Amino acid sequence: MDRITYRVIYGDTDCGGVMYYANYLRLFEMGRTEYLRKRGLSYREIEDKWGILLPVIEVSVKYKASARYDDLLTIKTSLLEAKSYKVTFQYEIWSEKNLLVEGKTTHVAITKEGKVIKIPKEILEVLSK
Amino acid sequence: MDRITYRVIYGDTDCGGVMYYANYLRLFEMGRTEYLRKRGLSYREIEDKWGILLPVIEVSVKYKASARYDDLLTIKTSLLEAKSYKVTFQYEIWSEKNLLVEGKTTHVAITKEGKVIKIPKEILEVLSK
Amino acid sequence: MDRITYRVIYGDTDCGGVMYYANYLRLFEMGRTEYLRKRGLSYREIEDKWGILLPVIEVSVKYKASARYDDLLTIKTSLLEAKSYKVTFQYEIWSEKNLLVEGKTTHVAITKEGKVIKIPKEILEVLSK
Amino acid sequence: MDRITYRVIYGDTDCGGVMYYANYLRLFEMGRTEYLRKRGLSYREIEDKWGILLPVIEVSVKYKASARYDDLLTIKTSLLEAKSYKVTFQYEIWSEKNLLVEGKTTHVAITKEGKVIKIPKEILEVLSK
Repeated sequence: MDRITYRVIYGDTDCGGVMYYANYLRLFEMGRTEYLRKRGLSYREIEDKWGILLPVIEVSVKYKASARYDDLLTIKTSLLEAKSYKVTFQYEIWSEKNLLVEGKTTHVAITKEGKVIKIPKEILEVLSK
Repeated sequence: MDRITYRVIYGDTDCGGVMYYANYLRLFEMGRTEYLRKRGLSYREIEDKWGILLPVIEVSVKYKASARYDDLLTIKTSLLEAKSYKVTFQYEIWSEKNLLVEGKTTHVAITKEGKVIKIPKEILEVLSK
Repeated sequence: MDRITYRVIYGDTDCGGVMYYANYLRLFEMGRTEYLRKRGLSYREIEDKWGILLPVIEVSVKYKASARYDDLLTIKTSLLEAKSYKVTFQYEIWSEKNLLVEGKTTHVAITKEGKVIKIPKEILEVLSK
Repeated sequence: MDRITYRVIYGDTDCGGVMYYANYLRLFEMGRTEYLRKRGLSYREIEDKWGILLPVIEVSVKYKASARYDDLLTIKTSLLEAKSYKVTFQYEIWSEKNLLVEGKTTHVAITKEGKVIKIPKEILEVLSK
């Protein structure tokens, strides 16, 4: 499991006084990008060198408590499942000792023409490190 | 089922050339707000008159195809379930004849102090119209 | 001068209770896109057929009053100046009888390789209609 | 002058392949918030203890070059002017040796009821440190 931190800005919140529900998906993106980077793989590289994208085909989120302006959040990312055609990441967003949000994103590999292909073995190996 | 339309702007898309995955949750919000308004209930009113909020406690999204810049999307919103403690809306995002995205959001009722309460009967009745 | 309307959603606001200051730039984009469309020119077409982009090189905004959740805003867009190398649009955001925000965006024409070129005469003519 | 860094995510970019023009205003917010924090003043505190907000009344931005996905940006923030009724911050966004964007934001102090007041001397002193 990997951790990064993020400080909530005004632009993340809404008039309910808390982080807008869509914006946690930005944090998930930050989490999985840094998960890859720590394993020596940048997402930009996957695009540039391998010529593939890993679009999200499914998201689920459970909101238990709210992030507020100026909170310093911890985003914990882990790999839940890596199969030949899809990978699933799991996320937890914490503020101090409170678990605020849990989520999952499932991704497939597609070529730049949009064709779904097997996820290259080398990528699966790096993800499972 | 209710329909509204939305034109995709540059600010909704990402460098993958398609709508950023978090931004569909903005469309879901537009969908359920207009669903309420058509039944004579504005979300602002629920807050102001009833003193309650209806925060999202769960979201799930399936991404089947991508919305692109300048696409005129149709957002179809329906009520999937209305119980005394939670309501679930269901959404479909279409571009012409193509179903792009399906999603659900589940909401509870809370007071301004954050206490979960039963959803007022009158609201449940309006939702089920 | 052209008018479009936009209903403020939760996702546009911040915990100060008003529209987040960056989000007015999304409205400016909506305004100028519809300004073009009414004159028979879609921005997507400019990209696809002409092979050029019209990136923003300068923005200025004056915030006089705040847009709030659920406000139905009117965005008024006009062409302030069209020269061979740059065009400037002017925007006003109104809520009922109140002028909330004034802004300007200045654009140049670039090729897909990023080279600044003269704005094609046909585009300048359409803009000035 | 203060520096913070920010890594561009997919969610910041648009289908032009670069950061969406409105999103630099989020970076300006990050810059000025950390500028305050380094001087011992959190913006949340200003709201909570002093009961005032410092809304933006004017923004100007010059876009010279584009931030791209995964770029590690440096945001440099400095105080341009501090008068009794308004303060102006100045920002530069850099990617390695390239100055991408320059901007300014001007702020006034208002009470929670929306009345413009003099900026408290203690705040002005901290800002000028």
